[in-house]
Amino acid sequence: MEKLKVGVLASGTGSNLQAIIDASLAGDIDVEVAVVVSDVEDAVALERARAAGVPAVHVPPGKYRTKLEPEIEERYVETLEEHGVDVIALAGFMRILHDDFLTHFAGRIINIHPSLLPSFPGLDAQRQAWEYGVRWSGATVHFVDAGVDTGPVIIQAVVPVRDGDTRDQLAARILEEEHRIYPMALQLIAEGRITVDGGRVSILKPRQATEPVRETTGEGRGA
Amino acid sequence: MEKLKVGVLASGTGSNLQAIIDASLAGDIDVEVAVVVSDVEDAVALERARAAGVPAVHVPPGKYRTKLEPEIEERYVETLEEHGVDVIALAGFMRILHDDFLTHFAGRIINIHPSLLPSFPGLDAQRQAWEYGVRWSGATVHFVDAGVDTGPVIIQAVVPVRDGDTRDQLAARILEEEHRIYPMALQLIAEGRITVDGGRVSILKPRQATEPVRETTGEGRGA
Repeated sequence: MEKLKVGVLASGTGSNLQAIIDASLAGDIDVEVAVVVSDVEDAVALERARAAGVPAVHVPPGKYRTKLEPEIEERYVETLEEHGVDVIALAGFMRILHDDFLTHFAGRIINIHPSLLPSFPGLDAQRQAWEYGVRWSGATVHFVDAGVDTGPVIIQAVVPVRDGDTRDQLAARILEEEHRIYPMALQLIAEGRITVDGGRVSILKPRQATEPVRETTGEGRGA
Repeated sequence: MEKLKVGVLASGTGSNLQAIIDASLAGDIDVEVAVVVSDVEDAVALERARAAGVPAVHVPPGKYRTKLEPEIEERYVETLEEHGVDVIALAGFMRILHDDFLTHFAGRIINIHPSLLPSFPGLDAQRQAWEYGVRWSGATVHFVDAGVDTGPVIIQAVVPVRDGDTRDQLAARILEEEHRIYPMALQLIAEGRITVDGGRVSILKPRQATEPVRETTGEGRGA
């Protein structure tokens, strides 16, 4: 089976990147991390890539704080294409991607978010959950669309919020599940088992898998 | 131990009412359903009450569709007070309660909602969850405040959403958990084990319980 080539975008520590690299190198998933691209020159994520023998590219983001300049976003596309990626996985990438990028990789960009979406989208999801006082939280791997954490849900994992938990204890419990489900989601994509219909994801049984994800997930929630 | 007197407001079938009555009559919870009040004359909930020997009162709602006339809301308060209720449990009560009612019973009104709040507040929560495509949903027992399904969370239960589930299968799986956690929440209140601080509920260990809920839950999320 040919491996799914994943390009990872990361701005920070990249512990989810590490989980993907580890699962990939261990042969647990049919995935190859083809390139890691970061907007932050000294991001630990880039070090993790280099340490694993994965191409690590810093592309300076330009003058904005929360997005990329259009010409620079185009350079991100080019860099990812040069490395032949099938799928883009965001791993703590702190900039919003815009239409050209989203359209170019339509249905092939995924993200992980530390809450049970649609609860607590946006920044500091673990803190939001803790402050709200929910009894269960978790993590969500989802396709990326033009909204903030609004795309079709691929996998979710739940974790309890325990009486006496600190925010950090809750965040650590969620992170453990993130590291488990992000590689799992990539493997489902590698096996061609994900379809999206009207914004809802279905996971096919192994024998039902037919086509790679790129042909089947072009539609968003509103389609 | 003196039993917690609960007044239930219901507009429809009242299957959660039945779960509370059953747990109460079985002696599983230290709760007595003191009265059931409905805005719907032929509500099955009223029949369930009568069948269990619980006072069943129909108070016509007046001219509005989604709320009670102020004078009528006052009659609801009076009816509940006449029966000496400690706590109000909403069980499919389809009208919004307003300030006078909420203030009168401040910190003593609870509701059950068929989702993992804050996801999917409002009507048809199970359908909302199904259509969104979440992988986990559930049920939430919460204190009622002036918002729609926004009050402090007491208990939540999670259920999986399975590939191939219909909306009805999901709703049935959630309902089973509702019937389990609503009596459980009342028992925690009966044992004086619930405190609310800054909109977050803490559940005390049995030996920590000190005061009945009425003294400890006057503050809402914004406090």
